[in-house]
Amino acid sequence: MITNLLGAVPAELPEELTEILVAGQHVRIERIVSRGHASPADFWYDQEDKEWVLVLAGKARLLFEADRQLVELGAGDSLTIGAHIRHRVEWTDPEQDTIWLAVFYS
Amino acid sequence: MITNLLGAVPAELPEELTEILVAGQHVRIERIVSRGHASPADFWYDQEDKEWVLVLAGKARLLFEADRQLVELGAGDSLTIGAHIRHRVEWTDPEQDTIWLAVFYS
Repeated sequence: MITNLLGAVPAELPEELTEILVAGQHVRIERIVSRGHASPADFWYDQEDKEWVLVLAGKARLLFEADRQLVELGAGDSLTIGAHIRHRVEWTDPEQDTIWLAVFYS
Repeated sequence: MITNLLGAVPAELPEELTEILVAGQHVRIERIVSRGHASPADFWYDQEDKEWVLVLAGKARLLFEADRQLVELGAGDSLTIGAHIRHRVEWTDPEQDTIWLAVFYS
């Protein structure tokens, strides 16, 4: 019944780990764990849905295409990314797990 | 653009603090800060929407009416509460701030 989002991270993490916590008709909540992972070169997320994202632990940098703005995120930081706002994960801390909570909604 | 959910808590907190982070057509995301607050005596939440709730910091206990189950929550703990599942906040830690993230969705 209770899921702890700070635990249950595999010892080896060759790729980002994504788990769906809630899958509703209009909302999807995911936990994503990164360990030094970043988006592939020249890859941009371009999403139909809006996304509200929160860093629960770790450190990350998002890059937004339109204004080339680099946004630094640490524990507790949240922001909303509008639909079709192209962005990428430029960097996550290789020294610790970065745990994201992402809420996608239409 | 960035909102840190662990900070910006008033020094005095006579009542629970609720802030709406996202207000969409089908989803509402709130930050709630409790400091020893609990639901009023004999009060039960009975919600039209489903709620996914996460404790970002602190400690709390939820009580569910149907089976009188008392659920202890600490940092990182999350659970889903179905529509019309009657529940109340039985206790939050008076010694520290309990910061909740609540996602309500239909």
